[in-house]
Amino acid sequence: MRLPVPTARGLALQRDLRALLGEASASCDPADLWASSRDCWPRALLWTRAGIAPHPPDLVCWPANVEEVARVVRYAAEHEVAVVPFGGGSGVCGGTVPVRGGIALDLKRLAGAPLLDLAARTVEVEAGLNGQRLEELLNESGATLGHFPANLYSSTVGGWLATRSAGHSSSRYGKVEDLVLSLEAVDGTGQILRTVEGPSTGPDLTQLLVGSEGTLAVITRAKLRCWPKPPAHWLRGVRFPSLEKGLKALRLLQRAGLRPSVARLSDPIDALLAGRGLPGGSAESGALPLPLRFLVRAGQRESVRFLLRAPLLLNGVAESLPSFPLCILGFEGARAVEAEEEGAAALRLCARAGGVDLGPAPGERWLTHRYQESHRAAPLFAAGAFVDTMEVATTWDRLLRLHAAVRNAVAPHAFVFAHFSHSYLEGCSIDFTFLGLAGRAASADQDEAALELEEAEARYDACWKAALSAAAAEGATLSHHHGIGMHKQIFLTREHGEGMRQLRALKRAFDPRGILNPGKLLL
Amino acid sequence: MRLPVPTARGLALQRDLRALLGEASASCDPADLWASSRDCWPRALLWTRAGIAPHPPDLVCWPANVEEVARVVRYAAEHEVAVVPFGGGSGVCGGTVPVRGGIALDLKRLAGAPLLDLAARTVEVEAGLNGQRLEELLNESGATLGHFPANLYSSTVGGWLATRSAGHSSSRYGKVEDLVLSLEAVDGTGQILRTVEGPSTGPDLTQLLVGSEGTLAVITRAKLRCWPKPPAHWLRGVRFPSLEKGLKALRLLQRAGLRPSVARLSDPIDALLAGRGLPGGSAESGALPLPLRFLVRAGQRESVRFLLRAPLLLNGVAESLPSFPLCILGFEGARAVEAEEEGAAALRLCARAGGVDLGPAPGERWLTHRYQESHRAAPLFAAGAFVDTMEVATTWDRLLRLHAAVRNAVAPHAFVFAHFSHSYLEGCSIDFTFLGLAGRAASADQDEAALELEEAEARYDACWKAALSAAAAEGATLSHHHGIGMHKQIFLTREHGEGMRQLRALKRAFDPRGILNPGKLLL
Repeated sequence: MRLPVPTARGLALQRDLRALLGEASASCDPADLWASSRDCWPRALLWTRAGIAPHPPDLVCWPANVEEVARVVRYAAEHEVAVVPFGGGSGVCGGTVPVRGGIALDLKRLAGAPLLDLAARTVEVEAGLNGQRLEELLNESGATLGHFPANLYSSTVGGWLATRSAGHSSSRYGKVEDLVLSLEAVDGTGQILRTVEGPSTGPDLTQLLVGSEGTLAVITRAKLRCWPKPPAHWLRGVRFPSLEKGLKALRLLQRAGLRPSVARLSDPIDALLAGRGLPGGSAESGALPLPLRFLVRAGQRESVRFLLRAPLLLNGVAESLPSFPLCILGFEGARAVEAEEEGAAALRLCARAGGVDLGPAPGERWLTHRYQESHRAAPLFAAGAFVDTMEVATTWDRLLRLHAAVRNAVAPHAFVFAHFSHSYLEGCSIDFTFLGLAGRAASADQDEAALELEEAEARYDACWKAALSAAAAEGATLSHHHGIGMHKQIFLTREHGEGMRQLRALKRAFDPRGILNPGKLLL
Repeated sequence: MRLPVPTARGLALQRDLRALLGEASASCDPADLWASSRDCWPRALLWTRAGIAPHPPDLVCWPANVEEVARVVRYAAEHEVAVVPFGGGSGVCGGTVPVRGGIALDLKRLAGAPLLDLAARTVEVEAGLNGQRLEELLNESGATLGHFPANLYSSTVGGWLATRSAGHSSSRYGKVEDLVLSLEAVDGTGQILRTVEGPSTGPDLTQLLVGSEGTLAVITRAKLRCWPKPPAHWLRGVRFPSLEKGLKALRLLQRAGLRPSVARLSDPIDALLAGRGLPGGSAESGALPLPLRFLVRAGQRESVRFLLRAPLLLNGVAESLPSFPLCILGFEGARAVEAEEEGAAALRLCARAGGVDLGPAPGERWLTHRYQESHRAAPLFAAGAFVDTMEVATTWDRLLRLHAAVRNAVAPHAFVFAHFSHSYLEGCSIDFTFLGLAGRAASADQDEAALELEEAEARYDACWKAALSAAAAEGATLSHHHGIGMHKQIFLTREHGEGMRQLRALKRAFDPRGILNPGKLLL
């Protein structure tokens, strides 16, 4: 690993910011620079695998409170230095990669004890607090946030808000933009802004900052909705004869006003890989056909690469295997009878769509393993693969075509499967998983490693270009809860159209010097 | 009535805009100027009563489509003429009063047939369409918008969006900001903007324009959520031993996740005036004590003025009468059993708070008369009174104190009563009604009329200053669903704080020449 080298600008910044915030609050130590040079964007993981960090910041600093954040931003505005807010670093689109260097503003010290008012159903929390820690603290007081993104263990409240995060219970509790009541933030001039709860009048500044990915202001604190932690849970697996029927069931649940805490419909391959959708209902990956077992266990480097060299074939084999769509369905409530009644109503609707109740086992299995999927990716990267997910949303009438179109477009590039989640009245989102060939494990030889990285990036980009083009052609949104980052920028204009001019005007209004996360959201 | 006189600027505008839009599309006829010089703000009704129109536009124009709107705005930006969007003219805060003259942009010709997609639960509609007409058109196709503001018959879709409108079913279907999916609008440079449905990425431009009261863009079209019209309805009156108990019940309904189509809690005087809260449950205003009967019937001009001269006494008498808080509670559903089940669950919660079921009669009575309240105001104005409503919201723990504080503050100025509605998980709003002395019926003598108007305005302003100061001291929002207009501007800074700077920056971004509804929202 070639760690970044401190720059002259970094050393000057270090001197000034240590004077502003104290000795321990700013660093251009190579390891610190590297840690803030990337997030969990798979393309950035390829950089790491190749031992490089192409976009390090000049300096990392750790302000302790909103006043210190404001002081840093004012300094940066005066000196025209980029400031990139950094939370848990678990974004998957490169949103925190400091493409123009400058200051990586690590907010993890803004993590004071949350102010819980369970009677009022609110919690005030600083932006740097870790998501799982927040949930634990709430649980200790009998509360829950109801927000469970896949990166709960490695993300922060500020990161959720900056990217429109969603968790698996979003159909019940909403996405983070539905949870947020008001925000404290520092704009590009260093002014501290506190948005109005509600609001009762005028434009909604809270919803203006949600999703802005650090380009308009640094979010430092939020007041969020929270809930009494429901003691009763109900979880089932329901098998459907086709994706069409499964989607019909998801839609019926929404139309009936039911509020599932989980409603996750796996396509046949996703169901198969989790060992949950085989006709026999076997739970063991040992029951999988041999080629797929390699992928699941991902132990055998050579085998993984061998299979991924022929993605069309692999996709074809997977499709021909006997499997069915599987829906994990959950309800919760203050009393067992509430969760059960809602569950029973949901099962009746599922039955109308041909769904067969498989009992609680598939649900329990999902619950146990739900946060492990992301962590399974590491050995696959080590084996020379890349794993990525694309989450796009559309209306109910277009979902089936969208699923087929993206699968067909990606099939020549990567092994692909998907699940449907985050249902709304209008539609839902699809999370596609791509498993593609990155290249051999990184070489010790620098030139060779660079060449390999180039090839891996080219394959990765080709896969994504095919996927996003297919999704856009089917009228899907560009994203659902991962944001844009460096990754999806080229498609942003297609999504916002003439709105881009307004986004640029907003940028000028909030950040006249253009120092906040420059180069993101095309701003 | 002294109608406004066409100005030289108006005649020049008329020539240019007729050339742009056609002969019939622009006018400075005095009657047209007068009609766009005011809305239903009670203070503006005092102007009308005094026979004056202090803030006429220079010209009224009626564009036929969004391109014509854009053409007018571009013309206005070039010539630095104010443009004030005008819908139904039924706002109650003076939001459409053209305080700097210029062009009244009447949008009522933007009223094409709505594009309903009931399967997708959406309807696309032009901004100038009348609310009641839209609901009728939707009803013909088996749909409903679920949006029933008191001014449904006299308001437009664009007006709803510009002011954050709410209807009596907002607890079930949401306020208009919850119904809107995307917008088409024309910004201050004449550019047509179409916001992204969703949105999946970046700042939310839809929610930025909602509530902006014509200061950032002219809303020309919206895509809204809609619903199948529920055939089954359930309506009840529930009497509570105290306001505290009634509020407890409203809160319990929210906490239980019930979604009432009506949940309107009248304070004892409001219940009494509607003839619904007397211990005997009598429906007739004839059963009211004599002094109050005058007010309800409002026939006797002298009596009304006599009573309103001693508001403290009148409030004291009303408070001493035997009456109880009354909650009108409604549910609806696709099948009768659904509405009844939810209703039964609600009644159980009400009973826990001491509520007594009075059967369906009070609910049916409310349903029949629900749109009449606003129209009852006309004879009272004619009799020399003013009637106004103040809607503010706060959290559950503060509502009772807010109610008492505003009542005490207003009692020396006006007869005052209130109802609670628009419940949320966090709290609800209170609608106060003020009935105050305006002065004698307008005099034919101009000097005398001017003097009377001055006195009436002073009394009106004193009443409002007392009410808003009391509400602000109790931590209430400045508004809930009427907006700001000319009326509440002086309190806007208190609500938005440092956010005002951001609002001004937004104004510059969307309307660099400052021509859109200038002087509103302090912009």
